[in-house]
Amino acid sequence: MDALEEAIQRSGSAAYVAFGSSQDADIRYLTMFSTTDPIVYVKKPGEQGTVVVSQMEYERARRESTAAVMTRAEAGLLGILEEEKDRWRALARMIAGLVQGRVLVPPHFPYALAKELSSLVSVEIDRTALVAMRARKSEWEVGRIRQVQAATEEAMETGIAMIRKAGIKSGLLSRGAVPLTSGMVRAAMHQVLLKKGCTPADTIVSCGEETAFPHIRGEGALKADEPIVIDIFPRDDQTGYYSDMTRTVCRGEPSPDIRDMFEAVREAQDLAAARIRPGVTGEEVYRAVVDFFADLGYGTGSSGFVHNLGHGVGLEVHEVPSLGPSGEVLVQGNVVTNEPGLYMPGTGGVRLENIGVIGNGGFFTLTRYPRELVL
Amino acid sequence: MDALEEAIQRSGSAAYVAFGSSQDADIRYLTMFSTTDPIVYVKKPGEQGTVVVSQMEYERARRESTAAVMTRAEAGLLGILEEEKDRWRALARMIAGLVQGRVLVPPHFPYALAKELSSLVSVEIDRTALVAMRARKSEWEVGRIRQVQAATEEAMETGIAMIRKAGIKSGLLSRGAVPLTSGMVRAAMHQVLLKKGCTPADTIVSCGEETAFPHIRGEGALKADEPIVIDIFPRDDQTGYYSDMTRTVCRGEPSPDIRDMFEAVREAQDLAAARIRPGVTGEEVYRAVVDFFADLGYGTGSSGFVHNLGHGVGLEVHEVPSLGPSGEVLVQGNVVTNEPGLYMPGTGGVRLENIGVIGNGGFFTLTRYPRELVL
Repeated sequence: MDALEEAIQRSGSAAYVAFGSSQDADIRYLTMFSTTDPIVYVKKPGEQGTVVVSQMEYERARRESTAAVMTRAEAGLLGILEEEKDRWRALARMIAGLVQGRVLVPPHFPYALAKELSSLVSVEIDRTALVAMRARKSEWEVGRIRQVQAATEEAMETGIAMIRKAGIKSGLLSRGAVPLTSGMVRAAMHQVLLKKGCTPADTIVSCGEETAFPHIRGEGALKADEPIVIDIFPRDDQTGYYSDMTRTVCRGEPSPDIRDMFEAVREAQDLAAARIRPGVTGEEVYRAVVDFFADLGYGTGSSGFVHNLGHGVGLEVHEVPSLGPSGEVLVQGNVVTNEPGLYMPGTGGVRLENIGVIGNGGFFTLTRYPRELVL
Repeated sequence: MDALEEAIQRSGSAAYVAFGSSQDADIRYLTMFSTTDPIVYVKKPGEQGTVVVSQMEYERARRESTAAVMTRAEAGLLGILEEEKDRWRALARMIAGLVQGRVLVPPHFPYALAKELSSLVSVEIDRTALVAMRARKSEWEVGRIRQVQAATEEAMETGIAMIRKAGIKSGLLSRGAVPLTSGMVRAAMHQVLLKKGCTPADTIVSCGEETAFPHIRGEGALKADEPIVIDIFPRDDQTGYYSDMTRTVCRGEPSPDIRDMFEAVREAQDLAAARIRPGVTGEEVYRAVVDFFADLGYGTGSSGFVHNLGHGVGLEVHEVPSLGPSGEVLVQGNVVTNEPGLYMPGTGGVRLENIGVIGNGGFFTLTRYPRELVL
């Protein structure tokens, strides 16, 4: 918690304060507590952070949270609520009572609470410290992401094995007597993830022309000789960390266009992996891939390389740093995806996505799964 | 969208503006679009709401969102980003460019964006309109929750059937040669939910003394003669709506304390269901249950009835109205849980949770699953 400590002291604040449920990644990071009800986090300089929870959550928070725990009653909220019915004003009074001085808050702090709090104490926004801390993963965090990635690869192999073993009937993939669908592959992969304690979300299994749109989830029967894009980004239930992985495969004979795109994307991924290291910007790596694709005749407009090269992954599936047009300087400890893709409306798309950690010597890819188009 | 329209006009605003990913329930509600990347929503008086997305998301947003769709380029963001590197300032300039007048925002609007926006246009917080709209479910929304609830009951029956059919060996439940664990029951229920297109979260399968703490997830072998609390709150993948359900069961012979608590909780649930109707406050219904329990000798401190009677359910698993000490006036269209519980540290706990919709004539329970302690 050193960067946070420094930010508090540099700004001359009496405390760092955050608010939200654990769907808010800042709160999850600061407290390592999973809760559907919003909680208040307060950290004073030189002290451990404290989380304010309901009486009912006290025991669980004590067992599970990395922060110290205080009940709302202890924080004075119950007394305040007797005279103050507005929830935001009551919370602001509670926080001001605990802190008694200038407060530093993260950018996503709710405006209603910030406004009420501003009438009691001075409120300043921390735009950089918490973001930078979260972007620089600890060894423990990398371990959690590595674990989710292992489950993700097991799920990917389950899905790809179904496609590899599928029969082909009148241009459609089949499983026994029925067509093999996007939904069947997705469900089988999700079962693997669940058994591993991970929750999947919006997994993509798209096929044919659908694959030209990188975020279409896909539905219906899978086709032979067409690209199939599988993009999985599950979250570990216990810790909240994500991983993110994509493969493009084809059962049968892909078109020459798709073959060329696959080769280009694979080379681009290797080129990027060789360039990602501490000190370069995400923008530089992105531009290198843009230039590489441009030499092959692929643009960056509504077809070609239509998205960023990668993004940070942690308690959010998309977080800083970006490997895109406004990509920041990369630092040791960043965990980022390396996911070039090429898309041609009417034909289809190809994407390969690995995840890795930036170490002293460069980019260490955590993804072990092979990259093969034709099954 | 009538209440929102009214709020915009009443406040003399040029537009309602929201910001976030679809993890933000306000954004999900306003756009019905599922996205991991934050988007901007702008609604001017008399016009349909518009969502601003990246070029890559344009096609999908057009297909899936209930709002009109505009790309960031069309909204002017790409031009602004060429001269303005700060993301929050760039977004504020884009919004001010689109709206050109006073802006109304929801309470959770990010403070960093509100602050930048305030330097360009006047920003006012809507504390009531959107909250009230979301609390008053449409028939379509009730249909979605009913559908999730049906999947939830199928999962519950799967879990309870495993407990019903379990063997008993030296005080532990068993399945074949191995002990039946909390994790096994949870995994089986989650498979049912996944097949139904729902994502489970933090499902509780707790047993024995663990059940005295309402939010402990539970782990390890399940015991005979002890209460087992199963609390499931899955979310529909496609629409984002939740349901919420709890049953307490026992394989074998529960203690007299647990039997008494179960009877009291079941009666309390019936009593509450008879009182929930438009015009009464959540507080009144909560107090009626508190009084009922008090007559039986159960308090509301660290043992007894330690939580609220219920809460709204929709795009968040806990939302307004509350059936608790600060519970609002209930209105037609509210979907709320009715979940009395009693907890005795060292002994265990009992909770029964139904969900229902408040109609003209009273409370219509959507939950159909029976309430039986002894299997």
